[in-house]
Amino acid sequence: MPKYVYDFTEGNKDMKDLLGGKGANLAEMTRMGLPVPPGFTITTEACKAYLANGSSPDELSQQVSDYLAALEKVMGRTLGDHDDPLLVSVRSGAKFSMPGMMETVLNIGLNDVSVEGLAKVSGNERFAQDSYRRLVQMFGKTVLGLEGDLFEHAIDDLKKDRGVTQDTDLTAEDLAGLVATFKGIVKTESGAPFPQDPRIQLDMAVEAVFRSWNADRAILYRRQERIPADLGTAVNICTMVFGNYGENSGTGVAFTRDPATGAKGVYGDYLENAQGEDVVAGIRNTLSLAALEGIDKASYDQLLDIMRRLEEHYQDLCDIEFTIERGKLWMLQTRVGKRTAQAAFRIATQLVDEGVITDDEAIQRVSGDQLAQLMFPRFDSSVPRTLVAKGMNASPGAAVGKAVFDSDSAEALARTGEKVILVRRETNPDDLHGMIAAQGILTSRGGKTSHAAVVARGMGKTCVCGADSLLVDTKLRQMTCSDGRVIKEGEVISIDGTSGEVFLGDVPVAPSPVVQYFEGNLDPATGGELVAAVDRVMAVADRAARMKVRANADNGEDCARARRFGAVGVGLCRTEHMFLGDRRAMVERLILADTDEEKQGALDALLPMQRQDFVEILEAMDGLPVTIRLLDPPLHEFLPDITELSVKVALAESRNDDDRADNLRLLEAVRRLHEANPMLGLRGVRLGLVIGGLFAMQARAILEATAERVKAGGDPRPEIMVPLVGAVQELESIKEEIVHVAKEVSVATGVDLQPMVGTMIELPRAALTADLIAEAAEFFSFGTNDLTQTTWGFSRDDVEAAFFSHYLEKGIFKDSPFESLDTEGVGQMVKIAAAKGRRTRPGLKLGVCGEHGGDPASIHFFNEVGLDYVSCSPFRVPVARLEAGRSAGSGGSDTR
Amino acid sequence: MPKYVYDFTEGNKDMKDLLGGKGANLAEMTRMGLPVPPGFTITTEACKAYLANGSSPDELSQQVSDYLAALEKVMGRTLGDHDDPLLVSVRSGAKFSMPGMMETVLNIGLNDVSVEGLAKVSGNERFAQDSYRRLVQMFGKTVLGLEGDLFEHAIDDLKKDRGVTQDTDLTAEDLAGLVATFKGIVKTESGAPFPQDPRIQLDMAVEAVFRSWNADRAILYRRQERIPADLGTAVNICTMVFGNYGENSGTGVAFTRDPATGAKGVYGDYLENAQGEDVVAGIRNTLSLAALEGIDKASYDQLLDIMRRLEEHYQDLCDIEFTIERGKLWMLQTRVGKRTAQAAFRIATQLVDEGVITDDEAIQRVSGDQLAQLMFPRFDSSVPRTLVAKGMNASPGAAVGKAVFDSDSAEALARTGEKVILVRRETNPDDLHGMIAAQGILTSRGGKTSHAAVVARGMGKTCVCGADSLLVDTKLRQMTCSDGRVIKEGEVISIDGTSGEVFLGDVPVAPSPVVQYFEGNLDPATGGELVAAVDRVMAVADRAARMKVRANADNGEDCARARRFGAVGVGLCRTEHMFLGDRRAMVERLILADTDEEKQGALDALLPMQRQDFVEILEAMDGLPVTIRLLDPPLHEFLPDITELSVKVALAESRNDDDRADNLRLLEAVRRLHEANPMLGLRGVRLGLVIGGLFAMQARAILEATAERVKAGGDPRPEIMVPLVGAVQELESIKEEIVHVAKEVSVATGVDLQPMVGTMIELPRAALTADLIAEAAEFFSFGTNDLTQTTWGFSRDDVEAAFFSHYLEKGIFKDSPFESLDTEGVGQMVKIAAAKGRRTRPGLKLGVCGEHGGDPASIHFFNEVGLDYVSCSPFRVPVARLEAGRSAGSGGSDTR
Repeated sequence: MPKYVYDFTEGNKDMKDLLGGKGANLAEMTRMGLPVPPGFTITTEACKAYLANGSSPDELSQQVSDYLAALEKVMGRTLGDHDDPLLVSVRSGAKFSMPGMMETVLNIGLNDVSVEGLAKVSGNERFAQDSYRRLVQMFGKTVLGLEGDLFEHAIDDLKKDRGVTQDTDLTAEDLAGLVATFKGIVKTESGAPFPQDPRIQLDMAVEAVFRSWNADRAILYRRQERIPADLGTAVNICTMVFGNYGENSGTGVAFTRDPATGAKGVYGDYLENAQGEDVVAGIRNTLSLAALEGIDKASYDQLLDIMRRLEEHYQDLCDIEFTIERGKLWMLQTRVGKRTAQAAFRIATQLVDEGVITDDEAIQRVSGDQLAQLMFPRFDSSVPRTLVAKGMNASPGAAVGKAVFDSDSAEALARTGEKVILVRRETNPDDLHGMIAAQGILTSRGGKTSHAAVVARGMGKTCVCGADSLLVDTKLRQMTCSDGRVIKEGEVISIDGTSGEVFLGDVPVAPSPVVQYFEGNLDPATGGELVAAVDRVMAVADRAARMKVRANADNGEDCARARRFGAVGVGLCRTEHMFLGDRRAMVERLILADTDEEKQGALDALLPMQRQDFVEILEAMDGLPVTIRLLDPPLHEFLPDITELSVKVALAESRNDDDRADNLRLLEAVRRLHEANPMLGLRGVRLGLVIGGLFAMQARAILEATAERVKAGGDPRPEIMVPLVGAVQELESIKEEIVHVAKEVSVATGVDLQPMVGTMIELPRAALTADLIAEAAEFFSFGTNDLTQTTWGFSRDDVEAAFFSHYLEKGIFKDSPFESLDTEGVGQMVKIAAAKGRRTRPGLKLGVCGEHGGDPASIHFFNEVGLDYVSCSPFRVPVARLEAGRSAGSGGSDTR
Repeated sequence: MPKYVYDFTEGNKDMKDLLGGKGANLAEMTRMGLPVPPGFTITTEACKAYLANGSSPDELSQQVSDYLAALEKVMGRTLGDHDDPLLVSVRSGAKFSMPGMMETVLNIGLNDVSVEGLAKVSGNERFAQDSYRRLVQMFGKTVLGLEGDLFEHAIDDLKKDRGVTQDTDLTAEDLAGLVATFKGIVKTESGAPFPQDPRIQLDMAVEAVFRSWNADRAILYRRQERIPADLGTAVNICTMVFGNYGENSGTGVAFTRDPATGAKGVYGDYLENAQGEDVVAGIRNTLSLAALEGIDKASYDQLLDIMRRLEEHYQDLCDIEFTIERGKLWMLQTRVGKRTAQAAFRIATQLVDEGVITDDEAIQRVSGDQLAQLMFPRFDSSVPRTLVAKGMNASPGAAVGKAVFDSDSAEALARTGEKVILVRRETNPDDLHGMIAAQGILTSRGGKTSHAAVVARGMGKTCVCGADSLLVDTKLRQMTCSDGRVIKEGEVISIDGTSGEVFLGDVPVAPSPVVQYFEGNLDPATGGELVAAVDRVMAVADRAARMKVRANADNGEDCARARRFGAVGVGLCRTEHMFLGDRRAMVERLILADTDEEKQGALDALLPMQRQDFVEILEAMDGLPVTIRLLDPPLHEFLPDITELSVKVALAESRNDDDRADNLRLLEAVRRLHEANPMLGLRGVRLGLVIGGLFAMQARAILEATAERVKAGGDPRPEIMVPLVGAVQELESIKEEIVHVAKEVSVATGVDLQPMVGTMIELPRAALTADLIAEAAEFFSFGTNDLTQTTWGFSRDDVEAAFFSHYLEKGIFKDSPFESLDTEGVGQMVKIAAAKGRRTRPGLKLGVCGEHGGDPASIHFFNEVGLDYVSCSPFRVPVARLEAGRSAGSGGSDTR
């Protein structure tokens, strides 16, 4: 016969699957001899059986009877006894805490008769009636699913009638009347009277918990969190203890250390003469835990002793709920407690110092997300400020500067030493120089995966996007707030990328000490406990890591920063950024060239500039590998927008303007190159194969730069990467060209150059034919952005605004797959390609250079499938280092 | 010791891997006792060894010496003997015939001395000198790689000098002089004299054949045909026999049946006193083979007997090359011969009737491509016509009609009973009604995978595209040819989709009897031998096939045709075609709706029309399954082009036009919906999830139509297909909606509706997570067009023009992957998805509804991976039926 019920004395903390989190911890505390009110847990198996059959399993009723009888025997009272009733609480408790599920029904066992017994036994008629009132209300709302407002309104009406404002001002008679009113509501609304039989109350509450597993919000949450739908929830039945019994009673929550700062010493709140729900409801102000010492020193001392034992036992910060009933302390719950980022780092190192955990365990107590939070500057929240808009918190941080409405002006103003905030309706690749120059970016359109958001996050630059209450007018160079206030170019604004808030004026910013530490400007020995903790944790992570961390960096400056932040190479140097700005005109010349001579002229002009780019980068990363990607984006990105230009030409023609012929010629070229789906068009290796000489020029620039560095005594280590390869034939073709150039440059410079040539794996076909591609490729770098686009068949530019919000709402996505790798789909591509590639070339070096290289969950996945390194923006390098260490330590699986 | 040489007496026809095709067949004929000049074959292994080491394997020289000695003993002459020289030919012979390889050197063994011996023995000085001249010329050109023109110009100069026009007019002295000239050319150009040692001639020729395996054209061809690069070629060394010995000598080619028509009886050409190369060069007119009977009856009778024996032996049409030397017949080559489509069908059934092959073998002797050729009408080539342009042969057939330059006019004119040719620069989905109305489509832009080409092929409609010498002016309603001729709207033109030619005026067309047969208008019993043969072959194919064939059809008419052509269901009914034309306005209303009421109004207006569409389709396909795909394309396809509209608005504003506000509102909507990459945007299931009610309306229309058909006594079998699913959650969401609608419609109509719901597999993610998707999907249909786009990361609309031609040239593609399934990449997706889907749901019905469903090679692949059916355009259904039968019969592998 299946065992569906466990007494608290029968379980332990490792039985979460069967008893849920709450039940397992209650059992653990019971086993530790802590004062837990007696009770028992109905298992998740019972819930599963209920959900499968639509009714509780036959055996359950008898088992509950047996355990209830045992409980009654221990307590010396019976459930709902007329004279001295045993009352119980019923609480849900799944393996993972889950919003949307039914949580608690207190005071089960009270009815029209036992309430009098409780009044007598407690000597407190008001307490008894209030408890009964709470039962009917909670039962009606959570077990019967009635509208909560029905009850709240009845209380409000009564208070009005009595002329009082506080619940506590209602008398015992008032409350007795309220019980009658509530029972009336229950009967009218549910069609049946409030059940007087305590056992029926209990059974109905248990089944309501079972059913709440499939409440809409719970389903949505599970879908989003990828929690299996078939886990089921346990139900805890626990003897009631009352913190609202009178003056020598109370209830509280506490932490074994300060969860906000990580400071040592207990921390918590206490509320006299109250039940737990009153603490949550915030009806009265709570006292600090320390106050309890003065109120009830025995309980306080006992509580502190228990907390010490719990932390020792769980080897971590614990949070607890407790109740004191007439001077007796009861433990109602404990679990490993949540904490802030700062606290996490401090506590982890404290526990090491206290000998509780090891270094390797310490890095599992912090996360990359927490480290990232510590790296962003924050506004000083103590200073008053004027909020003018709120958008999405696209890239965290705090930035202050003059609002500027186009990128050229932003760059120009920044060059004069002014701090600027670039404000746009939305950004595009042409805004890159403005974004680089700006302190932060504010847009009125686009979501968390818009161009502005993605690029800003990549740069570690503050960004608020989609602040749609702002009317941005780039012509008038101003924006209008929803209250009509107009902010003109040059006015100072402050944007908070962590909260999405936009403030008027200069809000003071506190720089992050952790960034100062990574930059080498703050000594961990003297920089305070937090910096010291980060320093220690990073050292452990670096030692533990199997995967290396490189950076995505396109110029010498970024490379230098990446090195300071601990990158051991460049995983992605994008050459397209080198074709913007002044050089754009040369690219336009290349594209519009009518003759081979014109084309060669453009290539010849670009060569020395490219070479200088690479000299700087190779110098900054001397001795470390630098993966340089040949030109990737479609050529027409270097040309004007077709619609804007068409309008210009049409207007010029209608006005017979002088320059209409020039513009018309340009328009014809733009039309010729226009693609309906540029993301699926002439890009990457296709461009290299179609525009003869382009990739050869780039290869020559890289190799000449390499030779120059070698001659200067350096140790340049370039790796040439061909983008968007779908078939090995493409790569072979380009590789031939590169090898040919290498021979020429070797002869010309006298430096023997044997370039390493590899490829991006960013198309599903590349992943599936990785065994063939590895015959030509000396390394793979996973371009998980493009791989996500093609595997899902949606483009980052297009779909985010159009439907991601719907998908997140419907629980189809938990996170945007552009933020965190879709391991179920895109991850399979990576796994397949890694395995196939290494089958052909066992030592094949594998890395990832997409956005996901800096995302903690994704990093764990990459470690699991055996990649050699991840590459991310310089600012994310410390996060990636930490997660690389954590992933190695945890055997690859992240903690939920 | 490896055996590198095989005498013709040692091999047989099944040794093609080792001896090449030519060598294996020479050996086979030798084994059959046919008069083959003695000789031997150097194996492909020797070639491989040569290519690996850069020189012939040590053992080869001795083995050649041994076999040559044996040959000399048999012939009683030695190679290059001064008095009576043995001469040999050296010919390449790989497993597959391959353009670009060195083919033949004749007369090896002649030198300055042996040429005199040959003159004496033959009593023909001119013959001897001519033979020597040919050797030096061929050796120079093919072995030494000299420019062929050098020799040709020398001949031309000599003829000019002698005042003659024919080679045959040159005397023995002239030819002796030419030999000297040629030897001079060889020495000057190659730096070494023409080798006089016959063995050196032989060895150099053999190594030249080896090296020609890696000639550029050969490599390119292998890359395109996916022939492994490491097969190597064999070399055949064969005693020379001379058809140019005099009047009782000659040479010819022959077929055992007429390869053009398939008529019984031998067929061939004969040329007296000539060598094989003269036949090919076409210097003199050949005689028909029959004439040989009068010239040399003994040889003729012997030849006919041999041909009968060969056909019996090879059990198929054979072609042969033969030479008669002074009255003695020699067989120089045989192989299974190429034939026309018509001949293939006739010969296959003839051979069955003759008891040579079985029915199952007969269907392997024809192909779907051949059947397709027979189904297209052709222009009567005997009628004179005026060619005005040439484009790409995008969709075969012959069409005549009045040139019309827009689709509305085309439709209007066609409605009056006129035949029209739709002429456009390029087409887009809005031209669909015009394309349907037209006899054929002519475009001046776009290649074989442009919209016009793909849609026309889908409809089985004649199309010439990319005729870029035509200047199409849709405003003036005319096109200008390269010679300045202007063709105005209404003038009759004729387009040949098989050749890409465009003619002026009405060129007479011969309808295809095979189509008339499939349409049921021609009785196979009385329709002639071809129709009878097709009828018999189709019956065998249908019996043999494991896979079913359905059609892609969007209306009742197409469904009816598909049924006549043998489709057993509809695999893809595209509902987007139902939203064009008049209904477009309603879709625009739906998109631009400001309120839910407006949106619902548009949906309510569309519902009855959709229902009627489905009633007609389900009626036409009564009793057969009909897979209906819910709306797939991005909404903005139903809106005006953003650039055109922007220009219109800008001009209207500059002129202060009255309607500028309306257009501006429209433009704002268009901008809002504009996507940078619509192919990767808001389409398919995403649309269904975002535009609430749209898919429910379509499901309602389908289910109401089903109920209506059931009530009318019909047997409707709809299958509802959700497009562009990437995650099972998407499908689950829509399925819930459909099930809900089904319940409502069941209640309302009293017909119990349990709709079958499945999905397209057209995204890599869907393929990789097919195991999860199969939990919700009752069937899969592979959308291989989109799957090709996303697997390769290029869109059909964009890349074809931009780089497919480069890729075909560079041998990266053999065929466009949109034409024939890329089995190496996209095919893996199909395979993975099929296996994963069936793991979850063993009986899962699998089909394909992309363009590839009608492509022969792809059909064989689909059979191999276990699909249940293919679906293609109605016109391709017979082709698919044939290939489905062939693929089952051949165990899934196509013959190369």
